[in-house]
Amino acid sequence: MLDPDLIAQHRQELRRGTTSLACLALLAATPDYGYRLIGRLADLGFEVEANTLYPLLRRLDKQGLLSFEWDTSEARPRKVYATAPAGIELVSLLRADWNRLTEALDRMDRP
Amino acid sequence: MLDPDLIAQHRQELRRGTTSLACLALLAATPDYGYRLIGRLADLGFEVEANTLYPLLRRLDKQGLLSFEWDTSEARPRKVYATAPAGIELVSLLRADWNRLTEALDRMDRP
Repeated sequence: MLDPDLIAQHRQELRRGTTSLACLALLAATPDYGYRLIGRLADLGFEVEANTLYPLLRRLDKQGLLSFEWDTSEARPRKVYATAPAGIELVSLLRADWNRLTEALDRMDRP
Repeated sequence: MLDPDLIAQHRQELRRGTTSLACLALLAATPDYGYRLIGRLADLGFEVEANTLYPLLRRLDKQGLLSFEWDTSEARPRKVYATAPAGIELVSLLRADWNRLTEALDRMDRP
């Protein structure tokens, strides 16, 4: 009855805003390389592709929510991202929003 | 420290996907006019403006997730929207996604 493309579209919309939040929360706990962050996100159920994640990390960096240092210990320098103080502040605001939305959805189930 | 526009942008992203879900869930419980749905959403903490909600309702109708009947009991005919069977199915899928995302976010807090 439900068109798979339609389901996918609505799922993606629901998920989109949470990916930034998940990245900021994970990189606040432990700074990491982009490619390892993809694995940590996947472990939590957030399937994010590299060509989605890398532009997102650059955007969050430009917004002052993340910062990075170069790890030059190997042949090719790699960026190690960490959540900036502004990003940590945003995580707590967005978590509060998320909790309010969850409560609102729960209240709908018992009108 | 945090730019208010930046906060607003991230909040809106987080919220966007949930508005469709909230509309479908509310109109599954009780069919309603668009303008009254705005009030029911606001009561639950979803501030949605008419010029956002009306195009959304038309989109959900085109997607077969909502249907409407004309209420002609007053001078000006009005649409009464109700969630279609496909919409009810989608609500339960998206609620399951939401619960998984909530669990994932909760797990981040205790790494």
